[in-house]
Amino acid sequence: MNSNADDKMTIIAFSGDLDKTLAAFILATTAASMGMQVSIFFTFWGLNIIKKNEGPIKSKGILRKMLNLMNRGGAKRLKLSKFNMAGLGTSMMKKFMKESNMPSVEEMIDMAKEMGVEFIACTTTCGVMGLDEDAFIPAVDKMAGAATYLNEARNSKINLFI
Amino acid sequence: MNSNADDKMTIIAFSGDLDKTLAAFILATTAASMGMQVSIFFTFWGLNIIKKNEGPIKSKGILRKMLNLMNRGGAKRLKLSKFNMAGLGTSMMKKFMKESNMPSVEEMIDMAKEMGVEFIACTTTCGVMGLDEDAFIPAVDKMAGAATYLNEARNSKINLFI
Amino acid sequence: MNSNADDKMTIIAFSGDLDKTLAAFILATTAASMGMQVSIFFTFWGLNIIKKNEGPIKSKGILRKMLNLMNRGGAKRLKLSKFNMAGLGTSMMKKFMKESNMPSVEEMIDMAKEMGVEFIACTTTCGVMGLDEDAFIPAVDKMAGAATYLNEARNSKINLFI
Repeated sequence: MNSNADDKMTIIAFSGDLDKTLAAFILATTAASMGMQVSIFFTFWGLNIIKKNEGPIKSKGILRKMLNLMNRGGAKRLKLSKFNMAGLGTSMMKKFMKESNMPSVEEMIDMAKEMGVEFIACTTTCGVMGLDEDAFIPAVDKMAGAATYLNEARNSKINLFI
Repeated sequence: MNSNADDKMTIIAFSGDLDKTLAAFILATTAASMGMQVSIFFTFWGLNIIKKNEGPIKSKGILRKMLNLMNRGGAKRLKLSKFNMAGLGTSMMKKFMKESNMPSVEEMIDMAKEMGVEFIACTTTCGVMGLDEDAFIPAVDKMAGAATYLNEARNSKINLFI
Repeated sequence: MNSNADDKMTIIAFSGDLDKTLAAFILATTAASMGMQVSIFFTFWGLNIIKKNEGPIKSKGILRKMLNLMNRGGAKRLKLSKFNMAGLGTSMMKKFMKESNMPSVEEMIDMAKEMGVEFIACTTTCGVMGLDEDAFIPAVDKMAGAATYLNEARNSKINLFI
């Protein structure tokens, strides 16, 4: 692990809202383009960002199947934290993003990976929600817990909870 | 106060949502187990986490009594930030936590205190909401304002607003 | 730019909720009064905090006009993230703030400016939402993107995403 704290940033992606996800990825890709080493820890609703867009999400037990059906996830299904308005606000925002030549979340994920941003899925919340590696896109580098995050964060210059 | 910034973490617990509270306490207890010195500043809705579970919350004036009735608080009354679904999603999450052997928020509070995590209630929001020390569980170490927080945060390696 | 990291704090004001805005400004003004150099980056819904309270917000295209009509903004129109209750909770909170001699957001903006807090509007989200400098109060020092934020944050002791 790099001991030069000036070169690192960590982001905890907790919410999985479209707008907060955009903020997280704009910061992550910009930091990477500036030569910083960036790690994103996906936890709770933030796991939705890295869930597969297609196919069923396997999970054990009826209640967890229900949760993962309602909380479907996938980068293209994220919704705004405000003004979602049954999807209307979210569609509008995606249209505005396209017109402004801003990449979609899916494109930002690809960009981030090309730039070497590390994707970590939180083992603890995966356990609670009944998710394993199969639920996620290949962009995810590893599954790890709070200790891994804290070790990176204590060696980073910028740490954000988004 | 310890001047070794590498050893410290501060968390502002603002939201009081069950899921964000779990994230805050998992990070706080893991950091403490790694030898870090951790302070949690409870403010706004985050004060609900440290309100007594039982008995009335005293406060001055009818409006503040109403606020503290609606915004009852207590670690066992926290709700999810998403998918609360009139309490159904929150109950389901608590069930999943139990099945995964994850401690409840009440248990995490006890664990955090045993590990020396410092609990600070924000005087400013207590003032606005008409709350005093009597409203809180004994786990709270002191009431203090933003200057106290900032002094700890500027000497900490990790600072999160949750 | 100051290279003494101990003297700086950055805040990303993302949400534009009344309660989170109060937290951000209490921290910013207290830090400034302690001699710290503070920058606030207003982005997404946080741009509402620095929108003009009066007059129309110009923006290109019918959809963006609709967005800026619904998402009107202005410091005096901010709402609570919880317990807004069709404005009732927000009014109650403003009353409590007044009774506790806490300044309003508008007053905090003035205080922050007098203390030298830097206000930066995020160019990227301004682009997406069709906003330009005319939409904002004169307190805004400049418009800039993520790279400007990251350069300040990597040289700061405290970085918060609110």
